[in-house]
Amino acid sequence: MDFLDIIHTRRSIRKFACDPVSPELIEKILRAGMASPTATNSQSWRFIIVDNRDTLNEIARIHPYAKPAADAPLAIVVCGDTSAGHAPEFWPQDAAAAVQTMMLAARSLELGSLWCGIHPHTGREDAFIRLLGIPGSVRPFALLIIGHPLQPFTHEDRFDEAKIHHNRW
Amino acid sequence: MDFLDIIHTRRSIRKFACDPVSPELIEKILRAGMASPTATNSQSWRFIIVDNRDTLNEIARIHPYAKPAADAPLAIVVCGDTSAGHAPEFWPQDAAAAVQTMMLAARSLELGSLWCGIHPHTGREDAFIRLLGIPGSVRPFALLIIGHPLQPFTHEDRFDEAKIHHNRW
Repeated sequence: MDFLDIIHTRRSIRKFACDPVSPELIEKILRAGMASPTATNSQSWRFIIVDNRDTLNEIARIHPYAKPAADAPLAIVVCGDTSAGHAPEFWPQDAAAAVQTMMLAARSLELGSLWCGIHPHTGREDAFIRLLGIPGSVRPFALLIIGHPLQPFTHEDRFDEAKIHHNRW
Repeated sequence: MDFLDIIHTRRSIRKFACDPVSPELIEKILRAGMASPTATNSQSWRFIIVDNRDTLNEIARIHPYAKPAADAPLAIVVCGDTSAGHAPEFWPQDAAAAVQTMMLAARSLELGSLWCGIHPHTGREDAFIRLLGIPGSVRPFALLIIGHPLQPFTHEDRFDEAKIHHNRW
C-alpha cells in the first residue's frame, strides 16, 4: 500500500475487537513513535502501555471521551518529560508528533487507534497522574487507544484550497 | 518501501539542492497534512507556501535555526486558527500532527524537510506575523523547510526501553 494511502485512510476508530495486540506490534508502534523528531533532539516522550482490564475500564471512566477504552485491548498514555532537552517548552509538540506517527504506524499494521486529548486540561492530567503514578516533571499528554478495528479504514480527504496562501496571507 | 521504513528514515535535512519542488508534490504534501486528525475535527491548520527567493532569505534571517531556508526552494509556514472548532486549546497539537504528517509525506516523495519551531516563542511568532501579514486569530506555529536533499536518508532508531512503563509508572 502506498504511503500516502496509509495517511489518507487513517481515521479515528471507536469500535475495537477484544483480541489482544501482540507484543511485537506494540513494540513496532512504540519504535515508530520514538523515530519522531523532538526539539533539540530531547526525546522527551515517555510511554505507559496499559493492557490491564481494570485500568482500561478506569481510564474509560476518568476521561470524558475515552469510552472505547472499555472495549479495547490496549491504550498507550503518551507523556512528556518537561525537564528534558534544551528547549523544554516544545515538549507538547514532541509528544503530538509521536502520537501522530504512532497512529500512522498502527494504521500500516491494520490496527485502529483513537487520540484522546489530556494536556492542557489540568483536570484530566491530574486524574491520569493519580491513576498511573506519573512522577515529578513528567506530564501525561494524550491517550492513544489501540486495537483491531471493527470499523473500516475509509478514505478521508479534507483538502481545502481556502486554507492555503502563497508567499503572503 | 515499507511504511515503517519511511518513518525510520525520515530525518532532519539541512542541505538542499536549489531545484524547485513541483506544484504536484507540494499539493500532495499539503493534502497529507490536511488528512491529520484535529480535536473536534476543527481542521484548525492553515498553510502559507513560500517559494519567493527574497522571502525565503528573510525567513533565514528572522529565525535563529532556519539558515537552510536561504538555499532551499520551498518552505511551508504551518499556522493555526486559534478560534476554530469547539476545543481551540488543542490547536498547537493539531498543527504539530500536521507538520509530522507532512514531513513523512515529503520523505515518501524523496524530499527532505526540516521542522523549525515558531510557537510558543512570541518573538518568533511576531516576526512571522509581520513578514507574512498573518491576520487576527491565526498564529504561526512552525516553519517546514522542504527540498530535494543533498544529505542521505539514514536509518534512525532511538528505541529506548527505559522510556516505556507497563500499566503503571
